[in-house]
Amino acid sequence: MPDNTLHTPASVQPKGRPHVVILGGGFGGLTAAKSLRGEKVDVTLIDQRNHHLFQPLLYQVATAALNPSDIAVPIRRILRKQRNASVLLAEAVGVDTQGKQVLLAEGTIPYDFLILATGATHSYFGHPEWAKAAPGLKTIDDALEIRKRILLAFESAEWETDPSRQKAWLTFIIVGGGPTGVELAGAIAEIARHVMTRDFRRINPEKARVLLMEAGSRILPGFSPDLSQRAAEALSRLGVEVFTGHPVTALDDGGATIGDERVEARTILWAAGVEGSPLARSLGVQLDSGGRVPIQTDLSVTGAPGLFVIGDLASLKQDGKPLPALAPVAVQEGRHAAKNIVRAIQGLPGLPFRYRSQGMLATIGRAAAVAEVAGLKFYGFVAWLFWLLVHIVWLIGFRNRFLVVAEWAWTYLRYERGARLITCTVQRPSGKRS
Amino acid sequence: MPDNTLHTPASVQPKGRPHVVILGGGFGGLTAAKSLRGEKVDVTLIDQRNHHLFQPLLYQVATAALNPSDIAVPIRRILRKQRNASVLLAEAVGVDTQGKQVLLAEGTIPYDFLILATGATHSYFGHPEWAKAAPGLKTIDDALEIRKRILLAFESAEWETDPSRQKAWLTFIIVGGGPTGVELAGAIAEIARHVMTRDFRRINPEKARVLLMEAGSRILPGFSPDLSQRAAEALSRLGVEVFTGHPVTALDDGGATIGDERVEARTILWAAGVEGSPLARSLGVQLDSGGRVPIQTDLSVTGAPGLFVIGDLASLKQDGKPLPALAPVAVQEGRHAAKNIVRAIQGLPGLPFRYRSQGMLATIGRAAAVAEVAGLKFYGFVAWLFWLLVHIVWLIGFRNRFLVVAEWAWTYLRYERGARLITCTVQRPSGKRS
Repeated sequence: MPDNTLHTPASVQPKGRPHVVILGGGFGGLTAAKSLRGEKVDVTLIDQRNHHLFQPLLYQVATAALNPSDIAVPIRRILRKQRNASVLLAEAVGVDTQGKQVLLAEGTIPYDFLILATGATHSYFGHPEWAKAAPGLKTIDDALEIRKRILLAFESAEWETDPSRQKAWLTFIIVGGGPTGVELAGAIAEIARHVMTRDFRRINPEKARVLLMEAGSRILPGFSPDLSQRAAEALSRLGVEVFTGHPVTALDDGGATIGDERVEARTILWAAGVEGSPLARSLGVQLDSGGRVPIQTDLSVTGAPGLFVIGDLASLKQDGKPLPALAPVAVQEGRHAAKNIVRAIQGLPGLPFRYRSQGMLATIGRAAAVAEVAGLKFYGFVAWLFWLLVHIVWLIGFRNRFLVVAEWAWTYLRYERGARLITCTVQRPSGKRS
Repeated sequence: MPDNTLHTPASVQPKGRPHVVILGGGFGGLTAAKSLRGEKVDVTLIDQRNHHLFQPLLYQVATAALNPSDIAVPIRRILRKQRNASVLLAEAVGVDTQGKQVLLAEGTIPYDFLILATGATHSYFGHPEWAKAAPGLKTIDDALEIRKRILLAFESAEWETDPSRQKAWLTFIIVGGGPTGVELAGAIAEIARHVMTRDFRRINPEKARVLLMEAGSRILPGFSPDLSQRAAEALSRLGVEVFTGHPVTALDDGGATIGDERVEARTILWAAGVEGSPLARSLGVQLDSGGRVPIQTDLSVTGAPGLFVIGDLASLKQDGKPLPALAPVAVQEGRHAAKNIVRAIQGLPGLPFRYRSQGMLATIGRAAAVAEVAGLKFYGFVAWLFWLLVHIVWLIGFRNRFLVVAEWAWTYLRYERGARLITCTVQRPSGKRS
């Protein structure tokens, strides 16, 4: 049998140094790679995309406020100066935990230590067929697709002569009342009320309906009930119709059935469920109900030597509560996994991980947000300023910080959206006119 | 037979005003629409894309220096305040010049006057099958596709273990020595020499070959011979191999045959021929060899009442020489067509068009360009500064001027490229590794 072991940049370097493979260039994987800088290991970071994505601002690309390159940076550039790290653009198809090698379409890559940080993907609650009608928001491509659908909906409404079909084009359903759903709903309502108003001749974009559907009893369940209430009020002021306790029972590209009521809508966005990336299934370990990998407190996986799992893909309880799927969790876990790998090489036992919460934030359109930090609660403009500050600071290292702020200033002052482009298509969606 | 006349925003306005339909939102069509502002006509501008594109800078999107939204603006926004103008996102499939109506997939739009400004498309000299292997640069989507191919070529080379295949990934062929070909070749050489250098571990991007293939006797044939010479020298200094008198005889995604020599290259870009947009064939008039519509000096078309053709799609000689396919020509023709339509409504004869040349410019990578203005010739840094000035001034009206300048400053000072993103795909191109 032919040896199809790949000669990775790391593996062609002088041998004898442990080879640390990191799958995924998100907050967790990238932090782990950076934390191994200067250590006596060879690091190979593998991602199926060439860029690290600042996911917290992805919804702003989907709603035409920011450009993709404002929130995405080539992983190569970030690790450029880290000589012991190399980057491969490739898609991993599985992990052989006993043979200690990563399986790619093109071959295999052996590892001494593997940090699995491939994150989560959308979950349609057993309805994969909903994916086409209701795209989710995880990647730049998702964001561009959603942006395209939102902009084309208004264009198609301007075209449409049949009133009921026109109404369907001007109805937007967002499924899921978490931070992403709230941010999308607020942004779309803003576009309809403030950005598009003067651009059309036959339709009045302000008539657009934006429905936020949450199956649970309140939106932003991760926050305290009173902040959920504040967020719902802020959304209503923006013109968003918030429905809680409304599970979606059916979905197609013509509309959705909520409970037993059918709503005609040509634009449906999915912000409901997520599940661990499919790669986890190849590990041969028992996954939790969300498809995540249960890990030890030292972030390792029982029975899989040298394997660490971090970020949204990891399932770890702290004080009896599962850790939330937040960037700060992934960052802290990435740093900790790197530390425990260095200790393992030195023959020391791994240290238990403890998450130090940095609070939670969600923004609701223009100049409104909710925040919970160190037990304190903010909402409204103060919380929004705080959100702005946190994200500008967070963008440090992103060359684009200055440009993002410039874009934001423009958007805020002029009620303008800079990136209102329909690309990757010249066709309007289906829906023959009368 | 059912009436499938579309109720355009204009046609539902109070009747009795002549309906001017403009096909194409480029420099020509947009200028024509703006020139009709305040006139007693209803204007409907139809484009199959939602944005006006600042084409002279499109190559900078293709080479990851600028974002799409830096050089593209929604047509709606530009015409927002012009009450007698409305915009439709639709693809025209033909023109019924006798029935005076535009044919769309969804129906027909009647006109009293039609300004045809759909421009030109790539011509592969009777080899349409080359299009897939060698994309051209006309739209944002083209630019993103080319950007993707350039970036993926370096990624794939880093992957590739077979030296000859690696060489093919690092070989870039640009077919066509006009301004676009020269600008692309210069920019790609720059990326390889200055931007990518420190990002890879196994390949040396500086080893990349960039070949500029011109079938004619010199590059930039529109310029004077000495400036063509200067441009060729500047390209050589950047590391571009310039071949003149080398027609491409065969082409596939593995390489190209120039004359009778085969060059293995995984990235081939087409900047050679253009021809009038296919729509011209529906007019039932004799087109010129380039598929362009021969027009009268008043920009109208013999035998087609109310029809005007402008920009790259129009074929008009001045002083015995055909007018060049340049933005200033399209802009001046757009203004003139609008004026002659107003005169026609007043029962006055159309005035003959005369192009006032504003000179020619082509840039060759970093801080080098050639320019011919009012008989004067510039080259090198002076010409480049002039190029910069002209384009910054030209971008007036584009909200993004400030951001573009910021991006340029960054690119220039840091040898950095802001938009190095591979989107609209997660797959690397074909080419199994050994």
